Amino acid sequence: ARIVTLPGDGVGPEVTAAAVAVLQALAGHYGHEFSFDEQLIGGCAIDATGEPLPAATLAACQQADAVLLGAVGGPKWSDPNAPVRPEQGLLGLRAALGVYANLRPLQVHPALADLSPLKNERLQGVDVLFVRELTGGAYFGAKTRTDDTATDECKYTVAEVERVARRAFALARGRRKQLTSVDKANVLETSRLWRSTVQRIATEFPDVKVEHQLVDSMAMLLLSQPSRYDVVVTENLFGDILTDEAAALAGSLGLLPSASLGESRVGLYEPIHGSAPDIAGKGVANPVGTILSAALLLRHSLQLEAEAVAIEAAIDRVLNDGPHSRDIGGQAGTQDVLDAVLQALD
Amino acid sequence: ARIVTLPGDGVGPEVTAAAVAVLQALAGHYGHEFSFDEQLIGGCAIDATGEPLPAATLAACQQADAVLLGAVGGPKWSDPNAPVRPEQGLLGLRAALGVYANLRPLQVHPALADLSPLKNERLQGVDVLFVRELTGGAYFGAKTRTDDTATDECKYTVAEVERVARRAFALARGRRKQLTSVDKANVLETSRLWRSTVQRIATEFPDVKVEHQLVDSMAMLLLSQPSRYDVVVTENLFGDILTDEAAALAGSLGLLPSASLGESRVGLYEPIHGSAPDIAGKGVANPVGTILSAALLLRHSLQLEAEAVAIEAAIDRVLNDGPHSRDIGGQAGTQDVLDAVLQALD
Ligand SMILES: CC(C)[C@H](C(=O)O)[C@@H](O)C(=O)O
Ligand SMILES: CC(C)[C@H](C(=O)O)[C@@H](O)C(=O)O
Repeated sequence: ARIVTLPGDGVGPEVTAAAVAVLQALAGHYGHEFSFDEQLIGGCAIDATGEPLPAATLAACQQADAVLLGAVGGPKWSDPNAPVRPEQGLLGLRAALGVYANLRPLQVHPALADLSPLKNERLQGVDVLFVRELTGGAYFGAKTRTDDTATDECKYTVAEVERVARRAFALARGRRKQLTSVDKANVLETSRLWRSTVQRIATEFPDVKVEHQLVDSMAMLLLSQPSRYDVVVTENLFGDILTDEAAALAGSLGLLPSASLGESRVGLYEPIHGSAPDIAGKGVANPVGTILSAALLLRHSLQLEAEAVAIEAAIDRVLNDGPHSRDIGGQAGTQDVLDAVLQALD
Repeated sequence: ARIVTLPGDGVGPEVTAAAVAVLQALAGHYGHEFSFDEQLIGGCAIDATGEPLPAATLAACQQADAVLLGAVGGPKWSDPNAPVRPEQGLLGLRAALGVYANLRPLQVHPALADLSPLKNERLQGVDVLFVRELTGGAYFGAKTRTDDTATDECKYTVAEVERVARRAFALARGRRKQLTSVDKANVLETSRLWRSTVQRIATEFPDVKVEHQLVDSMAMLLLSQPSRYDVVVTENLFGDILTDEAAALAGSLGLLPSASLGESRVGLYEPIHGSAPDIAGKGVANPVGTILSAALLLRHSLQLEAEAVAIEAAIDRVLNDGPHSRDIGGQAGTQDVLDAVLQALD
């Protein structure tokens, strides 16, 4: 299988290297051949080529089986009025690959419950899969700007909502068969289209129980009753906000993976944390979110379920027994955590 | 002073009546004359007149010194595709009164910390004032809808951002002198205009420390470090989501007030909870959020600071000593809580 790696900026190279080491070890154990092709994206791509998503990067990704990304962005490129920004590389890649469904699983590891801002009893049984629409909405709508005024258009078509809703229903079918669709249908026209489309697709999945929540209520319910939710599907911007809110429950952003999938086989896998410039290059970043993203890559793009489960079991052991990186209250560096994961895999 | 009351739907009439009783008692103690003019809004207005904001209601509000609102909406009027919806009454009123700055204070009462989903130690020192822009953004932008496509336009002008930013800076000056401005400047054009405008207004308030956060990060930081924030200013939709998330920290929505202010003296005051149709008419709704909204009315529209403080002190005593309504773990009804507040005021 051909895997393109996009280490990107900040801690991206460190955590990507750790995940690649895990994939290589696994390939050895199971007798697979994985090739790794490293390409530029984000701030480092701007520095090298002037563009956040160079043509060579995009071409390599389009020919790959899967793409593993570290992080993009950092203070060096953070002027919001700069002509090119690192984030454009990531948004352009999502659009070009057509990965409209961003899966963000949330579980709170029992050994880490004390790190969560939520009271331990509220964390019992939390197991949510967010499905965030990733290639539409205000992220990709028309924008205007004059000296005096700015606009962003949020736009959704029925077909865009249908495909992400179907994906979410199918995922719910393989889990606890509950789908929560989040919108702001009492105010937004796009949300009314969203809601009526989800309601129609629901008839194709009569075994899945559906509920609709307004985004403001959902922001509360995620805190007051997080264990109530199974699969949560929502549009791009609401998904950006709600998944980060939910991620805070895990105690550290460093732990959480994501998978972005479209109709084609090539998926985009990345930890949900950012480039963390404050700790970049120090060898202390938590590689767990990226290693778990590699597990999702094995599962969703390479159909290697046993291998994915092996990684998840190894991470589970390391989170139970340590060593723990600094973000989760330990002293271990990136390499220490990686070594422990590799050992747990043996 | 002339106060228009808009009890609205669901529990709205019960909590509004309690707040009016408190205002009347206070008028007696301090020798003020308050007149109360009750008008229709929301679902009950649709039922009576076909419109969620009847002309008589709007005219009365425009001539008042302040408006006290209960809640609007309910299952009876909740079809998102209905031609008129209760929420339109509230949005129309906000726009017509020009109340562009929605103040939502958040404190967690020490006696109620166990009710919060957050671990008690994280709640220490939480004292945030949200300033949500209330008359712009996607709430009021152009919308389109065809069978296939829907759009919502988010639009902001420099003048709209300036006035709410100035209000937020001025409020920060009277508090801990820290302002956090929240946007999504790495993606949205309106957020880039928002950020650069806030940066410019900041030069008028050199004594206030400003920071900018992306809305997704802020959704996390509100949970991981809630005590770090003083005044938080943001646009309409982000404010809707973040203030409801923050409200969850207080343990019950029934406790929290809000004030919506514009350039004119007439302000709009309402609890942040909704119409709670499941408990409407049962005499069990928590009136505290509405009574605290009446305190904000005294402070901001009538310049009666001592009277506002008297209400807040009375509520503090009742939250400490009880009786407590069901949403905060007690058995008391609306009238029991009201009686205790009236007694504490004496
Ligand atoms: C970097 C940024 C553009 C991105 C987003 O908003 O989608 C990030 O926050 C994410 O959630 O992946
Ligand atoms: C009822 C609804 C239109 C309203 C809003 O979204 O502004 C409510 O959620 C609020 O926050 O006051």
